[in-house]
Amino acid sequence: MIITSTANSQVKHLLQLQKKGALRRKEDVFLAEGPKMCLEADPADLVQVYVSEEFWKHGADVWGEHRPRPVLLSDAVFQAVSDTKTPQGILCVVRQKHYEKRQLLGEGRPLLLILEHLQDPGNLGTILRAGEGAGVTGVLMTEDCVDIYSPKTIRSTMGAVFRVPFAYTPDLSKDLEWLKSLGVKLYAAHLKGAKAYDRCDYTGGSAFLIGNESRGLSEQTAMACSERILIPMMGKVESLNAGVAASVLVYEAARQRRTAGL
Amino acid sequence: MIITSTANSQVKHLLQLQKKGALRRKEDVFLAEGPKMCLEADPADLVQVYVSEEFWKHGADVWGEHRPRPVLLSDAVFQAVSDTKTPQGILCVVRQKHYEKRQLLGEGRPLLLILEHLQDPGNLGTILRAGEGAGVTGVLMTEDCVDIYSPKTIRSTMGAVFRVPFAYTPDLSKDLEWLKSLGVKLYAAHLKGAKAYDRCDYTGGSAFLIGNESRGLSEQTAMACSERILIPMMGKVESLNAGVAASVLVYEAARQRRTAGL
Repeated sequence: MIITSTANSQVKHLLQLQKKGALRRKEDVFLAEGPKMCLEADPADLVQVYVSEEFWKHGADVWGEHRPRPVLLSDAVFQAVSDTKTPQGILCVVRQKHYEKRQLLGEGRPLLLILEHLQDPGNLGTILRAGEGAGVTGVLMTEDCVDIYSPKTIRSTMGAVFRVPFAYTPDLSKDLEWLKSLGVKLYAAHLKGAKAYDRCDYTGGSAFLIGNESRGLSEQTAMACSERILIPMMGKVESLNAGVAASVLVYEAARQRRTAGL
Repeated sequence: MIITSTANSQVKHLLQLQKKGALRRKEDVFLAEGPKMCLEADPADLVQVYVSEEFWKHGADVWGEHRPRPVLLSDAVFQAVSDTKTPQGILCVVRQKHYEKRQLLGEGRPLLLILEHLQDPGNLGTILRAGEGAGVTGVLMTEDCVDIYSPKTIRSTMGAVFRVPFAYTPDLSKDLEWLKSLGVKLYAAHLKGAKAYDRCDYTGGSAFLIGNESRGLSEQTAMACSERILIPMMGKVESLNAGVAASVLVYEAARQRRTAGL
């Protein structure tokens, strides 16, 4: 059996899942595209898999038999449901992750990224990817951040979304108090930071707070932090891209921890 | 006079300039959008300026009289020529920059980014922006890199394109030899790097080489470098986004130089 019409109900449903965050939340799933993402998903979390005819000719061996058997779509139908211009021919419906906040602390020294009102899906994906690389133990986001399950975010995480614990919080102030009570130091990335970011010690439990792309952190959130840190900028640069700023900070923490033999 | 039809020849020409790199090259111009970009362009480089009716109601004062008088477009026509979904109502045609390679070395200790076959316009823009922030003296690109004058690149530079010297090279090998002869150390960002990036000394003249998003640096280029450096990655991350990798490297150089009081 192969689906050859975009009028098919499964196909229509997939298109809705691509577009609508509310529907993804309701069904507690998200979509991941491409062989890399689909192979990295926990097979137990795969709800359904779709492949293009073309992909399946060569991809069936790679997919293996312990994973759910895919639904075949004609190449044209696959193109229609894909979120990318040049689809890779495999797409899966995956169950959403639900972490306890405590899981964001990791097992050793916590290293968190806390995002307030971040709006760009690509930035969020980049932050997860670089965060995993730098050893971030978790990512905490305010509820007004972009949906981590939007197709563009998922794609730009390059699989980190399956591995980095994350959570949305309805009450950031309360969580910041909780982190402080656990000895986690809070560093606000701030254009008016008093201290260059590389003058602080991140070898203990640390969290970097990154604000909205245009407006930065709210004053209330910056106030709750132990320190406002600045990434020095030369030339006439007014700010860095939020994904770049987060990456520079977490890689400085990773560098310090590596240098200290941690 | 106000242009109210997309059939107008100037409007058609603008649309061609948005789309076609070859035409931009032939006419030696590029397009920059938004008040920030248009105000940061050197007034002497402005070939033509277009504003929407709506923008001009409030923006005429900001624009000032020493800059070329804009051509008025109806809001609908402006929307049609804009490369963005939510246009900011001002767009200018700017003369392209032409730097001598020597200008990429700056006046003190050179700090270069050298890009080989970089393909993503957003990555290139991010690299220029973060590069300026970290004090990069110039960006050298192979001719098969994405067009620096593509609208998306221009936008993501946030103005750095006006200030960071750059050049495309038809013969990277030759330029690498030239840089070496000047004492500039060449560091290849490489997934099989032998040394963690933070174990090298970038206080002298340094250049970081960044390769294509999927394939990395060519073996020939990596061979020409003094050292292959690795950005250590934890978790299951296979690589970092090229813009992030470049940013982490140049900010490490900036940190070392600042720490050394340079």
